[in-house]
Formats: sequence, C-alpha cells, structure tokens
Amino acid sequence: MASIATVAAETGTAVRLAAGADEVDRSTVVGMVGGGQLARMSQPAAIGLGITLRVLAERADDCAAQVVPGTMVGAHTDLTALSAFAQGCDVLTFDHEHVPAGHLDVLERSGHTIRPGRAALVHAQDKAVMRERLAAIGVPGPVSRVVRDARDASAFAEEVGWPLVLKTPRGGYDGKGVRVVEDERGTADAFDRATGVLLAEVYVEFTRELAVLVARSPLGQAVAYPVVETVQVDRVCHEVLAPAPALDARTAVAAQHAALSVAHQLGVTGVLAVEMFQTADGFFVNELAMRPHNSGHWTIEGAVTSQFEQHLRAVLDLPLGSPRLVAPAAVMVNVLGGRRADLGTGLGHVLARDPELHVHLYGKVVRPGRKVGHVTLLGDDAGDLRERACEAAAYLQGDSDA
Amino acid sequence: MASIATVAAETGTAVRLAAGADEVDRSTVVGMVGGGQLARMSQPAAIGLGITLRVLAERADDCAAQVVPGTMVGAHTDLTALSAFAQGCDVLTFDHEHVPAGHLDVLERSGHTIRPGRAALVHAQDKAVMRERLAAIGVPGPVSRVVRDARDASAFAEEVGWPLVLKTPRGGYDGKGVRVVEDERGTADAFDRATGVLLAEVYVEFTRELAVLVARSPLGQAVAYPVVETVQVDRVCHEVLAPAPALDARTAVAAQHAALSVAHQLGVTGVLAVEMFQTADGFFVNELAMRPHNSGHWTIEGAVTSQFEQHLRAVLDLPLGSPRLVAPAAVMVNVLGGRRADLGTGLGHVLARDPELHVHLYGKVVRPGRKVGHVTLLGDDAGDLRERACEAAAYLQGDSDA
Repeated sequence: MASIATVAAETGTAVRLAAGADEVDRSTVVGMVGGGQLARMSQPAAIGLGITLRVLAERADDCAAQVVPGTMVGAHTDLTALSAFAQGCDVLTFDHEHVPAGHLDVLERSGHTIRPGRAALVHAQDKAVMRERLAAIGVPGPVSRVVRDARDASAFAEEVGWPLVLKTPRGGYDGKGVRVVEDERGTADAFDRATGVLLAEVYVEFTRELAVLVARSPLGQAVAYPVVETVQVDRVCHEVLAPAPALDARTAVAAQHAALSVAHQLGVTGVLAVEMFQTADGFFVNELAMRPHNSGHWTIEGAVTSQFEQHLRAVLDLPLGSPRLVAPAAVMVNVLGGRRADLGTGLGHVLARDPELHVHLYGKVVRPGRKVGHVTLLGDDAGDLRERACEAAAYLQGDSDA
Repeated sequence: MASIATVAAETGTAVRLAAGADEVDRSTVVGMVGGGQLARMSQPAAIGLGITLRVLAERADDCAAQVVPGTMVGAHTDLTALSAFAQGCDVLTFDHEHVPAGHLDVLERSGHTIRPGRAALVHAQDKAVMRERLAAIGVPGPVSRVVRDARDASAFAEEVGWPLVLKTPRGGYDGKGVRVVEDERGTADAFDRATGVLLAEVYVEFTRELAVLVARSPLGQAVAYPVVETVQVDRVCHEVLAPAPALDARTAVAAQHAALSVAHQLGVTGVLAVEMFQTADGFFVNELAMRPHNSGHWTIEGAVTSQFEQHLRAVLDLPLGSPRLVAPAAVMVNVLGGRRADLGTGLGHVLARDPELHVHLYGKVVRPGRKVGHVTLLGDDAGDLRERACEAAAYLQGDSDA
C-alpha cells in the first residue's frame, strides 16, 4: 500500500514550495470552463479552501450552475464569452477539454493564466499529437499513424497487422469516436463516417484497464494517487477499484512513474488522468485527460486529499496534498441513466440498506446511459465493496429491486 | 473504538426506515435560516445528496451566501422574511437557535415543516426550560433555579453553597452570558448587567469538557457519534479530540445514551450536540445545540457520514449514515481571528508543511477571536495530531512563525 501511494516531489522540499503560493488570498477566484459534474464536485473543495469558484456553463441549469453562485452562461466555443468570463478569474481551468486551441491562444496572449496551459492541453485534445509526443518521450503506447483515407489505413495494417483501432483524433470521449476494424471493409466504413483524418493504432491485447491520476503544480511539485482498475461497460466507465486489485508493485510503480513523467514532460498543471491498458508484460497508455476524472471520484472520501481539491491546489500553485488511501480499499460505481427518472426516489432505500454508502447525485436530467451520479464505499474487502456499490447504483438507476 | 462508535436505532430495522423517505426527490429544497459557517459547510453535503440548499442570510456576503446560489437576504427576526423564505422550502432548519419562538409558532401553524420543531428547539433556546426538562427526565445536571434578583440568588446559594454559575437563559453562546460568582457582591454585579431573570446553577468541579453529537430523524432513527473531548480557551472552543482520549467505555456509553435519550425525549429532529462536563464520578450536561456544532467539525473527514450530511438526512427523514470514525483519532482545531487579516496568505505554508492537513476557511472577515476557520488531522496518535493541528491553526491566524 505505502509503496503505491507515493508522493513524488520533482523539485525541492515541501517548505521551499510554499514560498510561491503565499500570494493566494481568500478572494482568489478559480474559473472553470464547463458546468458539468466535475465543476459541481469542485465546489466542496473550493468551499473548504476558502477559494471562490466561478463556472462558465452552457445552460443556467447545468449541474454545476445549480450549486455555484454567479455562474455565467455561455458556450466554451464562444471567444467573447470566454474572454468575459476570464476577466473575473485569477486562474482559468476546465471541466472538459473542448475549448478550441485558438481561443486558448488568444486568452493566453491576453495575459490570462490558464492551467493546464494550451501547450499541455493539446495532448488531451488531440490523440494524434498525444501519440506522437508520448512515443518521443518513451512512454509505452501502441504503434500508431495518422491515416488520411482507407487506402492509407490498409497500408498501415499491412505493416502492423489487423485489426486496427481507428480513432477520431479530436472530440471523442467515453469511447465515442473509437472503433476496432478487422479488415478493409471496416476501414472504408469508418472513413465513410469520418469527417477528416483518423488515428490508426495497432490493436494490442490487454488484460484489464488501469488508470493513474497525478497532479502537478506550476512549480513542479507532483503527486501520484494509487493505481486503480477501471471496469468499462459498453465503453463507459462503470466501476473503479482502488487500489487496482492484485497489481504487482513493480507494474504499479512503473505506471505511476510513467504518469508523473507525462505530467512533467508535457508541462501539465492540475490533475492529469492517464488511462492505461494492462498487458501480459506491462501496460501502455491509452488516453489522457487534464482535469479531474471519473477514475478519481473515489478520492472524495477515499484519499486524504480529493482530486478536486488537488486540482484547485495545483492550478493555484498551492502545495499539493497527500494522495494516500484512507482505507485498505475504495470502490466507486457510476450511476447511469436507467429506468428511474427521479434518482431521489431511490435514495431512501440505498441509504437505509448501507449506512456506509456515499452517494453523489449530479442534479442532471436522466437520459439512458448518461452519467448522473456515483456511489463510493470504503473498507477492507474490495469484492464485498464492489458488490454493495453495484447493488446501490443499480437500485438508484431503477434497474434493480434488490 | 467499536463500542464507542455505536449506531443506535430506536425503532425498527434500517430497511423498514427507508419506506418513509422514498418521496424525497432531486428537487427537494432544504432551507437553512442563518448564513454562517454551519450553513456554508452544509453545502458540500447537499451537493453530494443532490438536494438543493437555500439560505436566509443577514447579509449578501455572509459566508454561506458566498457559496450557496439564490441566497435570500433577510433577518431571522423578521417574520415576513421568514415566511417568504419558507415558501420555497420543503423543510426549514437552522444554522443557529435565535429565531423567536413566536415566529416558529406562526410558521408551523402555516403548515411549514420545521426541523427541529419549535417544541424541541425551545430547549436549545432557553437554558432554564432545558434545565427543568433534563431534570424531569433524569439526565444528570447541576441543581439549578431561575432567580429574579440578587436576593433570590443569595437565598439559593445559602441552600447549595457558593460559588454559583449565573447564566442568561436566552441568547448566550460560546460562554457569553455565563459567569461564575463567588459571593453576594458578584451576584449583585451580575444583576446590574442583566436584563431579566438569570439561571443560577451549582458550580460543579469538573475534570474536562466532553461533547456527544447525535442525530435523530422524525421516524425515530438515531445515531451517536463517538464522545469527544472539547478544549476551551477563554470559553471559546479551541480543540476537539475524537474520540475523547482515555475515556472509560462505561462513561462513554453512558454519555451517548444520555444524549440519545435527550434527543428522544425532547423529540429532536436533526443533529443535537450535547456539551458535557466530566466529573470525578461521571458527567453532567452543560448545554444543548440543535444543529451541526463546532464539536462535530472533525466528522467532515473523520467520520463516514459528516454531521452536515447527517443533519440534512435527518431533517429530510432519510435514513441516517454511519457515525463511525474512519481513523483511530481525529483532531480539530479552530482558526480564530488573530494577527493575520488575510487567512489565504498563510495557506501555502501550512499546506506545504503538512500534506495531510485539511483546511476549512469560512470566508469571514477576520476579527479578534472570531471563528474564521478550522483545521483537521486524522491519524493514530492524538498527541501528535494535536500538536500539528495547533501549529497550523496558529500559523494561519498569524500568531506563530513556525
């Protein structure tokens, strides 16, 4: 356990790191672009630290807008809205990675502090840029190539073998924009649906999915949370098990080092989630997200410092907190839109059934498969926690009577 | 440990308790009268449960108003404001106990749901009523009498002996309105400053102060948190040690039972804090508060279910959560107004010095001795935690360079 939950300081001692942060005062405003559940769950962390959180949300009833005073309504693609929002903020950060790079350029050139910055963020926005960069810095990943058309893709497959994984370089999330193709027909079909180039990757057999959450401050302090296992259902994250059960310490430390190295080499500030595939002889990196991430929701109760507080500290260049697990195991299960339209009606049952259960509902309208909440349990036995958390999530969704 | 952190269900099983709570849906609104730090710290709990918190604050910049959208500005003594606020709320509850009883009567008769209700709340509003009631139900307390003037008080002292503790029955807090008098001159002086009757109590020697936090739902489910030791400085709560160090299990369980009994007998709904004095042969009750309480701030990180979430669950008649400590010990130290006007300037130092530290700043203007924040640490060794937490609080206040 202790060896997994390491704190890595890239530079200097903790006390030295404090100096740069002493300017932060209680009127400090962190502006988050995007009004989803990540912004919503950042509000408790901001409340604790005495920091003012502001949100730019697309709609006045977005789930963060419900709980953050003074939310500004505007699109993240609207430079005028972004500029107006940035005026009132000491630091600008993100609930998602969809702000156009050109807009980020303009904001940075106007003197706004953006964390993570445009130069780092592009690696979470564009999978082709990410692949090239990770290959250059020696982080394990599949052989990949940007392909312009079906013929290009087939030529790549002849070199590396079928099947291929074809990805939309920009704009995908939760497995959207990703498909596995077995042959030329599949490739042709993928390009029929595509609107530009695709990123082709060798398909690598993997045994399970892992994720490493790290945080890095502008001064270069960094911490890594324990490696977790993520269980996807229909390509949407369903369960997160912390720490990843039965992961050997060598692989765990190597995965943490890889994630810290990515954060350092790419100059990430804030939280970085590195999604990985575990293989027979190690792991490789699948995706990057530069913001609090679904694979880190367990940290709200399960780690000394939650990913939401850690992100705020990091973007403000405050010293980072301990990523240590506070129990032997934590399990998080997403609540997805199911048969129950009003999640609150299931709350009484699941809370009565399990007094240890932590419930997080996002205030979203229920739509099939949409992430509308999550539950977390801490304890000794990951198998037991997983069973109880899955039961609670299914009941909240309306997909179980148990 | 396990014997201290008990869950007491007064009625039925957990599953039975669920039925009554199934009506709660995501649009449920809890209105809290008062915009102080207790309302502020209730917002993270409301966010998690998907419940809408609304606040009636005296000023638009009160510390809860900073973090709760749609805060209404108005005085808790203004019946028109209270009535307007109550209109939009499913349940009304409180950040303090200063709403006039007559106003509560009107609101209840108008059909508003108030928890705790007026009949219970009077025991937290009026120390004389509380003393009489606790004596009637057999909860340990000092012999007491309402005294009309100095002669009345002296007559009482002749029966029970000097010194006396003289208290303003209504409106005092943090030891304000309480004085110990040694003789007739002191009594006369107390009445010179008083505006009405006083409550006179026998002065009882005590070894330390304890507090028990319980929560009770309208259906009668109740839980008790571990007994804590509270350390007062100048009659203001300074430190809370959970669980109370070296408290024998018999006294701990008796104290929890007394607190649960008070909650049950008085019909409290929500959180009840029972402040106690430990004596050579037991304990007696000093004060009651029917709301989240300073002695329970450690539960935010230190208990499975925080007092703030517990209070929301209880007033909504949702099943209660586990009050179990998540670590062997938790220590909370208040940050009081000191030499530093801007608390944020000390944040970098204390976070760098102690990566395990939890900081809560309330967004209040610093005034000498005012409660402006608190820090919490969890771990194995209460002595070590206490030293570190006191150092951090002193530094944040500006009263230490260490």
